[in-house]
Amino acid sequence: MTVRTSVKILLLGLGHVGQAAGEILAEKGDWIRRRYGLSTEIIGVADSSGIVFDGNGRGIDVERAINAKRRSGRVSEYGKDEGLRLAGTSELEVVLDETQPDVLVDVSSNDEAFSWHVAALERGVAVVTSNKPPVALHYKELITLSRRNETPYLFEATVMAGTPIIALLRRALLGDTVTGIRAVLNATTTFILTMMENGANMDEAVKKAREMGILERDPRKDLDGIDAGYKAAILHDVAFGPIEFERVDVTGISGLREEDVRGRNVRLVASIEDGRAEVRPIDLPDGHPLAVTGTENAALIETDLLGELLIKGAGGGARETASGVVSDIIEASLSLRA
Amino acid sequence: MTVRTSVKILLLGLGHVGQAAGEILAEKGDWIRRRYGLSTEIIGVADSSGIVFDGNGRGIDVERAINAKRRSGRVSEYGKDEGLRLAGTSELEVVLDETQPDVLVDVSSNDEAFSWHVAALERGVAVVTSNKPPVALHYKELITLSRRNETPYLFEATVMAGTPIIALLRRALLGDTVTGIRAVLNATTTFILTMMENGANMDEAVKKAREMGILERDPRKDLDGIDAGYKAAILHDVAFGPIEFERVDVTGISGLREEDVRGRNVRLVASIEDGRAEVRPIDLPDGHPLAVTGTENAALIETDLLGELLIKGAGGGARETASGVVSDIIEASLSLRA
Repeated sequence: MTVRTSVKILLLGLGHVGQAAGEILAEKGDWIRRRYGLSTEIIGVADSSGIVFDGNGRGIDVERAINAKRRSGRVSEYGKDEGLRLAGTSELEVVLDETQPDVLVDVSSNDEAFSWHVAALERGVAVVTSNKPPVALHYKELITLSRRNETPYLFEATVMAGTPIIALLRRALLGDTVTGIRAVLNATTTFILTMMENGANMDEAVKKAREMGILERDPRKDLDGIDAGYKAAILHDVAFGPIEFERVDVTGISGLREEDVRGRNVRLVASIEDGRAEVRPIDLPDGHPLAVTGTENAALIETDLLGELLIKGAGGGARETASGVVSDIIEASLSLRA
Repeated sequence: MTVRTSVKILLLGLGHVGQAAGEILAEKGDWIRRRYGLSTEIIGVADSSGIVFDGNGRGIDVERAINAKRRSGRVSEYGKDEGLRLAGTSELEVVLDETQPDVLVDVSSNDEAFSWHVAALERGVAVVTSNKPPVALHYKELITLSRRNETPYLFEATVMAGTPIIALLRRALLGDTVTGIRAVLNATTTFILTMMENGANMDEAVKKAREMGILERDPRKDLDGIDAGYKAAILHDVAFGPIEFERVDVTGISGLREEDVRGRNVRLVASIEDGRAEVRPIDLPDGHPLAVTGTENAALIETDLLGELLIKGAGGGARETASGVVSDIIEASLSLRA
């Protein structure tokens, strides 16, 4: 490939996924240049301590930013050391106007990020995100804005980490009509249910999940099925068109008793059809393809021509999630060039 | 979508897959128009009796052509009834020049079809095919020609029917480096091995496969692993770049004895890495994701970021294969419009 395009990225969020995305873009920079004719450059990075960027729109040293974040917990410390500029996240619009990135990458878990996505799309800045609530709660507005401004809005990593279920629904099977999807989309409940299957009680299993750091800060998001509900809504959005999140019928695992689970294959299953999305625990037959273990997610997609299609892969993990983010960054960059 | 593009298709091959593709384009014509802003029109159709087309480049009635084919076994009979023109398949270049299709669809099993694909690509006519030998034996020339002429060359249905393994490797996982693929790609050997697993001997199982019409006309293509070898080569081409078919190391199932198979999970497994492709029978552990049954195919894709990804779905069947053909026709048509 001979074309060389330089892609300027503003990275919001420098937790596990943000760090992994920054590291992958650095490690695989040459590979991405050779394969796609793209060179990526991170021109700003943010966490809750603020947005750090170079006043002259130059790239920043993402490895040093990650080190500062790991050392101090605050990316603003990196900015101070390097004499860079610092702005609050509430000033995002000003930073967008000053730095003019090509892609805004939101890998934060900020529930208010909807306004960031709007601000970017309104300026023709592509958005790539792993942050579920903005997509699940505001898909219709965001996708309408994305189409009107011919600016990519991509969110592969919101469902099944980098396992490409969104790409598959959006860009493969073009002649098939999807009739239904059943999927296990939340690995934390799989972990808890698997422990209970083998004799633990709910409290022990939840405690173990918290110790392992796989429980959301607000545990109800996992236990009450809200995280799985977000993902079910997003799959509905992509496969069938926008659904209001309030219409997703969610039952979590909190109400399950030990005797409902012990010795069985109960999983928190999302079932999606045109106009309907539901999440609830289901006792699956032995050997059922959705009876996953560990951090694996799985989805059964049913279509008119192909019948049943199974896709199964990582449902979590920093690099596994960053895989989806980086894939979307490349897709957005290629379409900006086109 | 407001854009309306009319796509002219020349359909070579009117066996089970060709008939299914013709029927799907007719049945789902309105849906394809609404969803993609495309209207498809078949302007010629061919089998070994010749190419039937309208001398004025108008569409033909594909349902009547299919009926004539079913009735008489020869599509030329349809041409006679309708006063259409008839040419030999050796005159394909003349027909391409006269009818000027947008997409040549080759769903024949003609081993000589390589020259058809070249003739189309040289004229800027997109090629969509389910025909394995041209792709497996000539990928490098064809993809080079496709790129040089900026003309799509698409072949989703050559591997795993419409199960979108090619789309997944080509257009998802853009940031991942694929490190290996292991896959079960030939359903006929799965059928035979499953019968032998349960006590049949090889001759009985082959006889049953022939009776069910699932054995290739030349049974060595299935039994000696040639069909799986073609598919392994194509997966290598897509994931790692061109490989010469002669370098694919193929061991079929002909040499297996009953005692090698009985009570086990032997499957004909393709293993592909950068620069290496191999097909041979492997005794899989119980519950292994590649221990498929029936007409299902499965592939385990290993990458640097995501780890292991499983895709499992139909590996044969007329509509299931046509699913991949129709998806590619839509992709080719959308890129012609772009």
